[in-house]
Amino acid sequence: MALKKKPVTGMKDMLPKEMEIRDYVIQMIKDTYKTFGFTSMETPCVEHIENLCSKQGGDNEKLIFKILKRGEKLKIDEAKEESDLVDGGLRYDLTVPLARYYANHANELPSPFKAMQIGNVWRADRPQRGRFRQFVQCDIDILGEPSNLAEIELILATTAMLGKLGFSNFTVCINDRNILKAMAAYSGFREEDYDEVFIILDKMDKIGAEGVANELNELGGYTKENVDTYLALFDQISGDIEGIRFCKEKLNGFLDEKIADGMEMIISSVEAAKEAEFKVKFDPTLVRGQSYYTGTIFEIRMDEFGGSVAGGGRYDKMIGKFTGQDTPACGFSIGFERIAMLLLENGYEPGNKKEKKAYLIEKNMPKEGILNVLAMAKADREAGKQVLIVNMKKNKKFQKDQLAEEGYADIQEVYRDSIN
Amino acid sequence: MALKKKPVTGMKDMLPKEMEIRDYVIQMIKDTYKTFGFTSMETPCVEHIENLCSKQGGDNEKLIFKILKRGEKLKIDEAKEESDLVDGGLRYDLTVPLARYYANHANELPSPFKAMQIGNVWRADRPQRGRFRQFVQCDIDILGEPSNLAEIELILATTAMLGKLGFSNFTVCINDRNILKAMAAYSGFREEDYDEVFIILDKMDKIGAEGVANELNELGGYTKENVDTYLALFDQISGDIEGIRFCKEKLNGFLDEKIADGMEMIISSVEAAKEAEFKVKFDPTLVRGQSYYTGTIFEIRMDEFGGSVAGGGRYDKMIGKFTGQDTPACGFSIGFERIAMLLLENGYEPGNKKEKKAYLIEKNMPKEGILNVLAMAKADREAGKQVLIVNMKKNKKFQKDQLAEEGYADIQEVYRDSIN
Repeated sequence: MALKKKPVTGMKDMLPKEMEIRDYVIQMIKDTYKTFGFTSMETPCVEHIENLCSKQGGDNEKLIFKILKRGEKLKIDEAKEESDLVDGGLRYDLTVPLARYYANHANELPSPFKAMQIGNVWRADRPQRGRFRQFVQCDIDILGEPSNLAEIELILATTAMLGKLGFSNFTVCINDRNILKAMAAYSGFREEDYDEVFIILDKMDKIGAEGVANELNELGGYTKENVDTYLALFDQISGDIEGIRFCKEKLNGFLDEKIADGMEMIISSVEAAKEAEFKVKFDPTLVRGQSYYTGTIFEIRMDEFGGSVAGGGRYDKMIGKFTGQDTPACGFSIGFERIAMLLLENGYEPGNKKEKKAYLIEKNMPKEGILNVLAMAKADREAGKQVLIVNMKKNKKFQKDQLAEEGYADIQEVYRDSIN
Repeated sequence: MALKKKPVTGMKDMLPKEMEIRDYVIQMIKDTYKTFGFTSMETPCVEHIENLCSKQGGDNEKLIFKILKRGEKLKIDEAKEESDLVDGGLRYDLTVPLARYYANHANELPSPFKAMQIGNVWRADRPQRGRFRQFVQCDIDILGEPSNLAEIELILATTAMLGKLGFSNFTVCINDRNILKAMAAYSGFREEDYDEVFIILDKMDKIGAEGVANELNELGGYTKENVDTYLALFDQISGDIEGIRFCKEKLNGFLDEKIADGMEMIISSVEAAKEAEFKVKFDPTLVRGQSYYTGTIFEIRMDEFGGSVAGGGRYDKMIGKFTGQDTPACGFSIGFERIAMLLLENGYEPGNKKEKKAYLIEKNMPKEGILNVLAMAKADREAGKQVLIVNMKKNKKFQKDQLAEEGYADIQEVYRDSIN
């Protein structure tokens, strides 16, 4: 078989310039989240196929890279369908593996457990610009904390981190699946139709209120009044604490008061304690696709991204699927790839650069000369510099230009005669 | 299908304590290698199956986790063998992907290219203690540098890094495949038998000179004299520069003098410029399995590991398999997992720890109280601390003991009455 030079379809080789920014952003994320008391953890990239196909991942489950069974377990002749051939798959997110991890190790972990994960995930999506089949996710999650302290800390940590990377004027949008449900119930929609109603509502950005009204009317089984009542609510609810208070009153009987109070608490706490410049907004149209969310949902929108750059929420039922016992859980995931890409495109300069020094040594330099250069390089490193030793090329000018472009401001030529 | 709590067979969940050390070691590796002029790069974890099965990986090619084709490309009914079902696999090392990467991007990369890679690799090995099917490799490679400057820098950088992690008194063993070949040729072995001869020689540690002699005698086609001549050489060659000079003379006609001169140059340069406490030794019995090595080979042995903790060598022919044009290449890979495990077992304390402060807040603390704690936490973080805010539990003493164990030396209890 011929060897292939390109990476596999939809995946990407990282060149040094991009890696420099990625390494820097990862370090910044780790450092910042650590100061909020989060601890690093990791699961294997390969997960049981049963866990990946447990209907918690929604559409992502259609995109799994599946791993062939090995040895005697693989029976190609007898295989009828995919599931006969595979026993594992590459994880499509970090949340399902985290739930498995917590179920497996709860006794060895602090309670609550504040987890930080940075790792690759894979989705066999149709390749398109800026979207790759392998990408890094950065998640923080707080497991075992039922109070809104979890939401507050997740939002404060994530926004502080974005602030440190130089982002500002973004918006944190918050909603709660219970408010979504209460609004639907109040308008007369039946519980079995909620998911469909929310899928339509989620298109508000794209198709507008009229488009949403049309699709809701096409649902069948509902009157124009149901739809009008529902849409009128969105007009009446303001995107602030007043809006939440309005919901609390208006949806009385459909919405637990504690939900509204909690939302108010989250928004005012984040406003008071935030460590970056941004807005916090109550957004009753926020849906977030993942079916596993059970309570608060939130995302961060930034104009530069034309959309969401981070998303999360509460998923109190997932760990129970592994253990039989529900555990409060809440997480926030940032779009690492989009952030790194934007910084790269904007020519962002990592703040941790060392002085770079290059030694250009004459060809066939005798041993004494090499030893001399090695000793100088050692001293430079001890002085905190980043040192490159290279053999001089025929086109020395071109070589020096290239080095300058790579950031080597100090380039020293070394000739055998110049060594004593 | 029932959900599974354990990780997949042979792979490992990383608990916070282990992650802390791993993160620290990775940062130390990156920082150190950077000062030697190496730059980060990355390839996807999934590689073309053609590249993984190109006979460059030796036995590792039997251990590949293979990835099922997707969509219409997967034809289960027509499949006769594994290769009909798969189009990719998880990389089993970082060297083959690096060669592909360089072949694909040479025009965009500095020349020589000093690459640093830290990433997961996968091998479906029989599970055993301390060996996992997913593990991290840390490689540095210098591509496009034909001179021994490459070997010298690889050895200096790797040993400096080990020194910074507190290791000393290890031994760097060096040999050259050309010396191996010259010794075999001198003793009358035929070229087509070299690989078998070296496989036997590689067992010297385990079965001793007598065992090696027996197996060589069983090879067939050689006299006792051949074997005796061969083994006598190992007795005559000392593990230092004298030994190299002896080879140069003794193997005259079988060994290019430049090889011996280069070895001498490497050893004396490393001795002169080393940044850690270790020995450098010429070891004519060093074989190293990988069939792709073409010149120098080296490894680092440490008593604590009962064997090798790093290995590498020159592989000048691999990139040519992708491009049709050979490119000098030399790399050094450290056993990250073994190093991290040893540090963990020895209770190693990362040197970058921040002061850790915890706030224990009374249950159902009113909003003003929460805001107050959030403000104090913010100030603590600004002062460089790592801050945890948790709700007080019924068993407060146990909770505080746990926190103390996690390194929270400063634990402040906050009650509603204590907030003004």
